[in-house]
Amino acid sequence: MQQAFVRVQKIRFFGLAVALLAFAQLANAQAIDPLPSWNEGKAKQSIIDFVKEVTKEGSADFVLPAERIATFDNDGCLWSEQPMYFQLFFAIDRVKALAHQHPEWENNEPFASLLKGDIKAALAGGKQSLLEIIMVTHAGMTTEEFEQIVKDWVATAKHPVTKRHYTEMVFQPMLEVLAYLRANGFKTFIVSGGGIEFMRPWTEAVYGIPPEQVVGSSVKTKFEMREGKPVIVRLPELNFIDDNEGKPIGINQHIGRRPIAAFGNSDGDLQMLQWTTAGEGSRFALYVHHTDAEREWAYDRDSHIGRLDKGLDEARQKGWTVVDMKQDWKVIYPHDLK
Amino acid sequence: MQQAFVRVQKIRFFGLAVALLAFAQLANAQAIDPLPSWNEGKAKQSIIDFVKEVTKEGSADFVLPAERIATFDNDGCLWSEQPMYFQLFFAIDRVKALAHQHPEWENNEPFASLLKGDIKAALAGGKQSLLEIIMVTHAGMTTEEFEQIVKDWVATAKHPVTKRHYTEMVFQPMLEVLAYLRANGFKTFIVSGGGIEFMRPWTEAVYGIPPEQVVGSSVKTKFEMREGKPVIVRLPELNFIDDNEGKPIGINQHIGRRPIAAFGNSDGDLQMLQWTTAGEGSRFALYVHHTDAEREWAYDRDSHIGRLDKGLDEARQKGWTVVDMKQDWKVIYPHDLK
Repeated sequence: MQQAFVRVQKIRFFGLAVALLAFAQLANAQAIDPLPSWNEGKAKQSIIDFVKEVTKEGSADFVLPAERIATFDNDGCLWSEQPMYFQLFFAIDRVKALAHQHPEWENNEPFASLLKGDIKAALAGGKQSLLEIIMVTHAGMTTEEFEQIVKDWVATAKHPVTKRHYTEMVFQPMLEVLAYLRANGFKTFIVSGGGIEFMRPWTEAVYGIPPEQVVGSSVKTKFEMREGKPVIVRLPELNFIDDNEGKPIGINQHIGRRPIAAFGNSDGDLQMLQWTTAGEGSRFALYVHHTDAEREWAYDRDSHIGRLDKGLDEARQKGWTVVDMKQDWKVIYPHDLK
Repeated sequence: MQQAFVRVQKIRFFGLAVALLAFAQLANAQAIDPLPSWNEGKAKQSIIDFVKEVTKEGSADFVLPAERIATFDNDGCLWSEQPMYFQLFFAIDRVKALAHQHPEWENNEPFASLLKGDIKAALAGGKQSLLEIIMVTHAGMTTEEFEQIVKDWVATAKHPVTKRHYTEMVFQPMLEVLAYLRANGFKTFIVSGGGIEFMRPWTEAVYGIPPEQVVGSSVKTKFEMREGKPVIVRLPELNFIDDNEGKPIGINQHIGRRPIAAFGNSDGDLQMLQWTTAGEGSRFALYVHHTDAEREWAYDRDSHIGRLDKGLDEARQKGWTVVDMKQDWKVIYPHDLK
């Protein structure tokens, strides 16, 4: 009897607690705009409509929380990518930092030009030059050493135009989308052409996305014992390019289920958006269109970085959401908030 | 004023709700043994001690919930693996199902022997034979088709000795460990030599582990359009072997942080346990030792499947937990529960 009484009391307490929490959440939901940095309009409304649709129990479009997977490109979608990918600034800074160990670079391209500050000449060799720069700066150390190198760089390096830390150049409206989706039971993933281990050291603090929810390009690695201690060593060999067709492949490999929402900004995200929207039930695809030359950058069909051409046509044809950065966003970066 | 009053009321309701929930959880924690299928003893106590250690706020060993990563081998650790890996039974069943499309198999090894029921002869060709069997049964279809094939097999196929569905042959005591860890804020992952897409269709229902927390071996895949619809096609080429040195590599690739607890049963798990325990702070490693010839199987140093030799020595030397299945487990499978 005594036990039964305690059990009933526990159930009562629990029921009351749940009811009160539900009330508190309801009150919150009514009071707060989930996307305050978005101007009212089609883009904002499409996000809210989709979230309401898939989270309304009993509706035909309801999606179980476990299936609420949302994937986000990083460069140009969650943070800026001009005048070049931020990871390339990282690589160049590393070349400079490592130059004293490599006197031969003074006479070898692409390093010689890079050290003279002539990035254009350094990259004139195309993909091969780029790969050489990436490999000498992203391989040859353990995963833990590389993590520390990235953390130090992120904490100190500044963008040449804005003079801000790179992680300050994330898009406030997209941070709100991430938080809004998570508050509605979504699991948010990054699926980026950028290096997976270049992103993981800071995505949790900056985006609230933990390392295990980051998918990206990678180099091969090797497990070995060093003085009885296991280490993982980064090798100067590409393992996976998480771009274009690589994005659905990477999603399938890492996540193992199809997203119901995907966010990108370039043709490199097109296959991810196609893959996402080809699933059954309610689906959502969004392109960030960089239209704001004043507060950020304006570029699309002719840009070498973040080209949005085929994707823009397909988005319009299929009715995907296209964000007009200039019109739709009240602010760009968190530090723009007054 | 009105608004401020509502806000204060909301905070009060919320505070009360949280307090009541905490009370209900505390009462539950005191009442229930988290590992009821484990006999009292060193193994059980070591699990409970570790969990208390890393979850006690303010203690030196406290680990933030986000860092509470636990990885589990599958074959022989979460379910049985005798008289051969269950995925091999799947492959053989698939060869039989596909035989009518391949009349040439009647004269070609390893298929001819397999179709006559002589598995030993079929596998006499070693790794090459095995690879051929895996490739014809695991590639050539889309990922969605393969998922359905696995689901159908899991729902119907029976183990030749126990006559049970394979997913009934999971270890009840390990299900309790998974649930106990998750109740204490851990994220549980599978890290298995088995096929990643062979496991994902059923791990969520059976273990409570969602697809995105399953790491395993894989074949290469290809994204393509079929009649305007994107598909991912499985190719007959190995992509990654998630065993031995592959386990820390797979963990680093998929999870991106080092586990604080790892569970295995064979030498193939040794590098995962080494990698896990080499991290700083409190760490936990456990080997399931198959010692119960009556209720399950007994094997270790000389077994071709799930060999536990070097790992057993290292576990004893380093003080890792070694579960004596016969002594430590009250029941083996969920259906043994009375």
